[in-house]
Amino acid sequence: MFTRIKTIDCNLFRVPLPEVMNDAKHGDHTHFELVTTTIQLEDGALGTGYTYTGGKGGQAIKAMVVHDIAPALIGKDGNDIDALYDFMEWHMHYVGRGGIVSFAISTIDIALWDIKCRKSGLPLWKMAGGAGNTCKAYCGGIDLQFPIPKLLKKMEGYLSSGFNAVKIKIGRENLDEDIERIKAVREYIGPDITFMVDANYSMSVEKAIEAIKRFKPYNITWFEEPIIPDNYKGFAQIVDATGFPLAMGENLHTIHEFEYAVEQAKLSYLQPDASNCGGISGWLKVAQLANENHIPICSHGMQELHVSLVSAQPNSGWLEVHSFPIDQYTHRPLVVENHRAVAPDTPGVGVEFDWAKLSSHKQ
Amino acid sequence: MFTRIKTIDCNLFRVPLPEVMNDAKHGDHTHFELVTTTIQLEDGALGTGYTYTGGKGGQAIKAMVVHDIAPALIGKDGNDIDALYDFMEWHMHYVGRGGIVSFAISTIDIALWDIKCRKSGLPLWKMAGGAGNTCKAYCGGIDLQFPIPKLLKKMEGYLSSGFNAVKIKIGRENLDEDIERIKAVREYIGPDITFMVDANYSMSVEKAIEAIKRFKPYNITWFEEPIIPDNYKGFAQIVDATGFPLAMGENLHTIHEFEYAVEQAKLSYLQPDASNCGGISGWLKVAQLANENHIPICSHGMQELHVSLVSAQPNSGWLEVHSFPIDQYTHRPLVVENHRAVAPDTPGVGVEFDWAKLSSHKQ
Ligand SMILES: [Mg+2]
Ligand SMILES: [Mg+2]
Repeated sequence: MFTRIKTIDCNLFRVPLPEVMNDAKHGDHTHFELVTTTIQLEDGALGTGYTYTGGKGGQAIKAMVVHDIAPALIGKDGNDIDALYDFMEWHMHYVGRGGIVSFAISTIDIALWDIKCRKSGLPLWKMAGGAGNTCKAYCGGIDLQFPIPKLLKKMEGYLSSGFNAVKIKIGRENLDEDIERIKAVREYIGPDITFMVDANYSMSVEKAIEAIKRFKPYNITWFEEPIIPDNYKGFAQIVDATGFPLAMGENLHTIHEFEYAVEQAKLSYLQPDASNCGGISGWLKVAQLANENHIPICSHGMQELHVSLVSAQPNSGWLEVHSFPIDQYTHRPLVVENHRAVAPDTPGVGVEFDWAKLSSHKQ
Repeated sequence: MFTRIKTIDCNLFRVPLPEVMNDAKHGDHTHFELVTTTIQLEDGALGTGYTYTGGKGGQAIKAMVVHDIAPALIGKDGNDIDALYDFMEWHMHYVGRGGIVSFAISTIDIALWDIKCRKSGLPLWKMAGGAGNTCKAYCGGIDLQFPIPKLLKKMEGYLSSGFNAVKIKIGRENLDEDIERIKAVREYIGPDITFMVDANYSMSVEKAIEAIKRFKPYNITWFEEPIIPDNYKGFAQIVDATGFPLAMGENLHTIHEFEYAVEQAKLSYLQPDASNCGGISGWLKVAQLANENHIPICSHGMQELHVSLVSAQPNSGWLEVHSFPIDQYTHRPLVVENHRAVAPDTPGVGVEFDWAKLSSHKQ
C-alpha cells in the first residue's frame, strides 16, 4: 500500500562523555553526536531513526537531511524502503559513495524500518532475520591512554556488569607498551574471558605482523583494524604472514567496499555499523554477504539497535558494546542475561529515546 | 616560516544554470552549488578556494567547514599545506574517507595553495609542475535529453568558440538512440574533431561491451564511466573484451580509490576533480600516480582552475570544459587559443570570483 511521507524532522544532539576517551587515530573524544530523524506518514504512522559520530560531522549530516534528502522524500511512499534507499543513493551520488551521505541515509532508513516494524507489530529481531533474539556481546573500551590500573578497573566493571568478553585499544607508538597492556589485561581477566584488540588502523603491515607475533600467547580472538581500512590487500598480507584472525567494518560505508573487503582482505569477522553503512537496509546486505562467505557478522557501536540485528542472523557473531553510551539515553538500556545481550520484544526497532534526558544537549 | 591561520570564511552560492541539463544517473540539473572559502593568515596573506556540486550537498559541505574544520585550523601554520592536509584527513576520518569530507578539504586546500602561489609571486601552473601553460581541451555537454537538432546546435557553439574536441552524454534506455546520436554528431562535426562519450555509469558490463561494438566505427577517443565507479574489475572486463579506451575519475575521492582504479580498472585516462579529491594537493597526487603508470592526466569540471593543473603536467591529457559555467563568475573566463586552453599567469591559483555577480545567489 502506498502511504505518503508527510514530515521528516531531524535533530542534532551533542552529548558529553562521562570521561575523555582516546584511541590511536581519532584523538580525544569528549562528546558524541546523535542525529535523530522522526518520519511521519500520512496515515499517522511514526518512526524514529538515528546515526551518531565521534563528535564531528553531525552538523553536516543534519544539513544534508534537512536541505537535500527530506525535501525530496516528502510525498514518496514511506512503505517502500527498498525504493527509497535506491532513490537516496542516486539522489546524493555525486557527493556520496560513502562519507556523510551514508550517515544521512542511515538515519532515514532506520526511521523507515521503525515504521515498518511498528506497522507489522513485530520487533526488529523478527523482521530482520528472526534466527534468534540473543547474541554474544563484548565491551569495547576507548582506552588507549588509560594507565594500566585504570584499564584494569574498567575490566572489573565490564565483568561485574555481566559480560565475559572485552576489547581494548592498542596502537601506542611503542609496541612494548601495547604488549604490556595486553599482558596485564589477560592476567587480570584470566584465561576464560574472550579478549580482542583494536589498533584503529594505526600500524603498518610490518608493525601489525610484529605485534601479532608478540601478542599471540595471550589468546586474542581478533585483531581489529591493524592498518587503514582502504588497504584490503594489506590485511591479506598480514593474514598470510600470521594466520591470525582480523576484523573490520566500522569504516566501510558502501556495499562495494564490503565486497572488496570480503574478496581481498581475508577477514575473519565483519563489523558493519548500521549508523554509517546505510541503516538497517545497508547492514542487512553486509550480513548476507558475510553469511554467503561463512563470516560471522558482528557490529560496531549503537548496541541498543545492533542487538536486534546481530541476534537475528544465522551467522550471528559478536555485538560490540561501545563506549558511547547511546543506550543510556533510551528507555531501554542494553539488557544482558547469561553473558548474552537480549533484543527488545517491542514492535519497532526497539530504540525509544528519552527526549527529556537528551533535551539539554540539543544543538 | 610559521604563519598562523587567522580567519576562515566560508560561503555557499546556489547558481542557476542557463538551461536544464541532464545525464543518465543524476537527473535534471537546474543549479550548481559553489562553496567558497577565504583564508587569512596573521601576516595578512589572503587566499580563496572553492568546491562545487551539481545542486545537492552544498549545505553539508559548508556546515562541515564551519563547524568541524575551520575551528580546528585556526592558529595552525597556514604555510604548511602538507601538514594541514594530513591533519584534516585524520581529523574528519570517521565521517570521511571520501564523500562530503573530500569536498570540504578541497575548498580549504585550494585556498591554501592560492596563498602559497601569491606569496611566491607565481601562477599555479608554475607551482604545480611547470611543464607547460597550455593544454588540450574539449567541451563536455550534459545533454542526454536534448533532441538531436539541439545537440548539433551545441556542437556548432563548441566549434565556433574555438574548440576542436567534444563530448556528449549517452546512456539512454534504448541503445539505438545512443548510437543514433553518436552518428549524428560525428557526421556533423566531421572526421577531424576529437569526440568522446560519457554514460555516467548507467550501463552494465554487458551493455557497455555491446555499446562499444556499435560505436567503434565513429572514432570515439574514450568511453567515460560506462559502469559504476566502484566496479574497478568491471572496467577491466570491458577493456579485455573490446580493447577500447576507458576513462574515469570524477567520482573517485581518495588516493586509495585512484590506486585501486589504476591497478585494477585498465583505464586509458584519469579524470580527477580537484574540487572533490582533496583540492590541488589531492589532484597532484593523482597526477603523479597517473604519470608513473603512463596514463594521461585529464580533469573533470572547473576548467578555470584545472587549466593550470593539466597544463603543468608532463603527462598532460585533456581539460574538460564543463557545462557548469563557474568560470563565467570569475574575472577570467577560460581562455582558448589555437584550440588549446591557456593557463592564467597571475600569481595565485588564477581564479578570482566576481563577488558582485555571485551575490544574489548567496544562501
Ligand atoms: Mg574499532
Ligand atoms: Mg563525466
